[in-house]
Amino acid sequence: MALELDNTNHHLYMRVYQYYKNLILSGKLRAGTKMPSLRRCAQQLQISRTTVEAAYLLLAADGYIISRAQSGYYITDIAAKTPVHPSAKKETAPAIRYDFASSGVDRESFHFDVWRRYIKSALRQDERLLSYGSPQGEPELRDVLCSYIHERRNVICSPDDIVIGAGIQSLLHILCPLLSNRQTVSFPNPSFLQGISIFEDHGFQIRYRDKDSEIIYVSPAHMTKWGEIMPVSRRLELIRHAAQRQRLILEDDYENEFVYMQRPTPSLQSLAAGQGVVYLGSFSRLLLPSIRLSFMVLPPDLSKSYQRISGRYNQTASKMEQIALCQFIRDGHLASQIRRLRRLYSGKLKELYQAVQSAFGANARIRVGSAGISLSLTLTCSLSGSAFLSLCAQNGIRVGLLQEQEKELELILSCSSSPVSDFLPGCQALFQVWQSTQ
Amino acid sequence: MALELDNTNHHLYMRVYQYYKNLILSGKLRAGTKMPSLRRCAQQLQISRTTVEAAYLLLAADGYIISRAQSGYYITDIAAKTPVHPSAKKETAPAIRYDFASSGVDRESFHFDVWRRYIKSALRQDERLLSYGSPQGEPELRDVLCSYIHERRNVICSPDDIVIGAGIQSLLHILCPLLSNRQTVSFPNPSFLQGISIFEDHGFQIRYRDKDSEIIYVSPAHMTKWGEIMPVSRRLELIRHAAQRQRLILEDDYENEFVYMQRPTPSLQSLAAGQGVVYLGSFSRLLLPSIRLSFMVLPPDLSKSYQRISGRYNQTASKMEQIALCQFIRDGHLASQIRRLRRLYSGKLKELYQAVQSAFGANARIRVGSAGISLSLTLTCSLSGSAFLSLCAQNGIRVGLLQEQEKELELILSCSSSPVSDFLPGCQALFQVWQSTQ
Repeated sequence: MALELDNTNHHLYMRVYQYYKNLILSGKLRAGTKMPSLRRCAQQLQISRTTVEAAYLLLAADGYIISRAQSGYYITDIAAKTPVHPSAKKETAPAIRYDFASSGVDRESFHFDVWRRYIKSALRQDERLLSYGSPQGEPELRDVLCSYIHERRNVICSPDDIVIGAGIQSLLHILCPLLSNRQTVSFPNPSFLQGISIFEDHGFQIRYRDKDSEIIYVSPAHMTKWGEIMPVSRRLELIRHAAQRQRLILEDDYENEFVYMQRPTPSLQSLAAGQGVVYLGSFSRLLLPSIRLSFMVLPPDLSKSYQRISGRYNQTASKMEQIALCQFIRDGHLASQIRRLRRLYSGKLKELYQAVQSAFGANARIRVGSAGISLSLTLTCSLSGSAFLSLCAQNGIRVGLLQEQEKELELILSCSSSPVSDFLPGCQALFQVWQSTQ
Repeated sequence: MALELDNTNHHLYMRVYQYYKNLILSGKLRAGTKMPSLRRCAQQLQISRTTVEAAYLLLAADGYIISRAQSGYYITDIAAKTPVHPSAKKETAPAIRYDFASSGVDRESFHFDVWRRYIKSALRQDERLLSYGSPQGEPELRDVLCSYIHERRNVICSPDDIVIGAGIQSLLHILCPLLSNRQTVSFPNPSFLQGISIFEDHGFQIRYRDKDSEIIYVSPAHMTKWGEIMPVSRRLELIRHAAQRQRLILEDDYENEFVYMQRPTPSLQSLAAGQGVVYLGSFSRLLLPSIRLSFMVLPPDLSKSYQRISGRYNQTASKMEQIALCQFIRDGHLASQIRRLRRLYSGKLKELYQAVQSAFGANARIRVGSAGISLSLTLTCSLSGSAFLSLCAQNGIRVGLLQEQEKELELILSCSSSPVSDFLPGCQALFQVWQSTQ
């Protein structure tokens, strides 16, 4: 048996995986056939057993083979279920060729190998993994975060003021009961669904851009989906207003790391000297969307209230991922990851801007802010937003809808998960769809 | 340089770790000294670079060394901060020698190597990790869970009825808003703090053992901390009552896997044919407490309501751990893990029972149920519960307090994290503390 190697620089186990996957999908290895044992396969291919095992585990994870206890791996009937000509399926539900609405991230944005090393290191800490995590979050991670946000965002706090959780929503579930003396909360607009949902569930009245609300939720580096940021003058004004009227500010520092066009503006928390502001941060966008790790920094009064009830809530974030992230930050990888992301996305956003301009010319109004990963595109169009979006989908294009007015649609295009080489053909395809509606 | 090997069967990297740790703590390697490069260390010790790297990462994780970008690893000043004679510290806060109140698990209970393999396999699925997880939980894991609970607990559902989350509390946060037409919830007793907290936060009225409540929260395999289980006759009665009066049952199947003394009793969900029961399950106790993975099975009406609002909530559980668990269950490891745990804990609980009997003789009343990992111990005592517990702590013993009445304390002792060899000396020490109060 000879292992045909392809030219890509895949790891060896990926080549073994691909080799068997092809044999299985092409029907050369039939359903029910037993796979060679790890040892035999390793001998035949003259590679290590570990490599074979990695490939087998991945084949099993993807459903090509299945393990039977005390017997070995067997080929599943996946080939029968997978259409031989994938195009046959496309006719019913067209595949998305150009995705400008994905919340995924760029393949190139993350050094998986580095992260894997840290997860593996965390996995070796048997003793720590045998016990429940601290309800507030691992103390080491809170220490590291405290220094990190002090250095980068001037946030003033002690590790005791930091609460870690699996996403912003998990933290808001802890925060809301601490704010039961307040009843109204203002959001910048209805697109902040994740935050709005939790406040609604806890019985708060939701308002929009309302300075009189008792709680003011803002995202200063992400005022709009196309990356407007809040100017410093407006920040100072907001803080003065909140202090005078005893409003509480929730500062969601979402995408502050993606402010390219100017120096990052100071955090509200630092401008307010740590008083009257809850600071919220998250790592899903900086590392991997699949990593559910967020944190909040409580001001002194709320921090005290939290300590009294902290025993009521279990920690939601994975302890293993907390341990890994702690060391990842300590070793400087988060800082270099952010530098890489900023370079990557500012470059891509510029390319996307040029592609839209080149495809639409004077037919579109484009808006780009000083931050973020998206631009907005306003088109005259007699179709409704949802009708236009489904027409796009039929032509293999996915975009987001920001708002619609009479005969005008404002679309939102993200540069994050598409490759740059798709920008121009994608925008040209979008232009043709639009032209067909005129 | 020679690597002194100790006798334990630690992995090689653990020996390298221990070797350097000793050199650093003893001051033989001073703060600020550069560690040898990976390559040089590997040559000197004649081991692989990977092994050296594993050891270095662990040393860094524990704060002994720190990495400086483009330079290498340096020794920290941890030795200066660590007391040379740890006993000096012990005088102020006595160390716990016998811990019968830990929520941790037995070191032997979990095959770390197997779990590590599955996490590593999950880490290789780059594409899946680059996107956000499904709000409801990974579809593959829901498929596997559906078959698993059908097989083991006769739970009747489809994968669409299953919602995954980071712990029971995360799931209750999603469930509570779906139950807003109800106002009262009954718990077996106030020790169900995690559940009670969330219902309180959502404005429900909490009651105890109240059949008239609109929601009835029960844990049939864990009625008391000392492992009483709900008999089948009582289960049927509860279901009839709930169906007649349109009560909703929340069945927390906590520790049903640890029912040793008899065959596991059927789940309420199966007895009720899937109607009017929300089934809650969790993996923290079965795998590792640090793994935050739970699920709920919604009955048809709530499942429909959930589908309408599922977009409001992000997934809280780690996607990596979901992918790993899915394959872990598929390959039969969960089933064998449960067999191992049941054997381990039923044996340990018996040993603990004998140790208590041998130490206390006729002086104590012991209660052990048909399940669980704990027994209860009632003692006459003129001290208050908290005074007795702190006297125990001063003598290096940690136990839990179940209830106190005049001149009587009911303690709860868990067999889970202490080694069996500590049971008899631990119980004898506890006996001496108790005797000193008589």
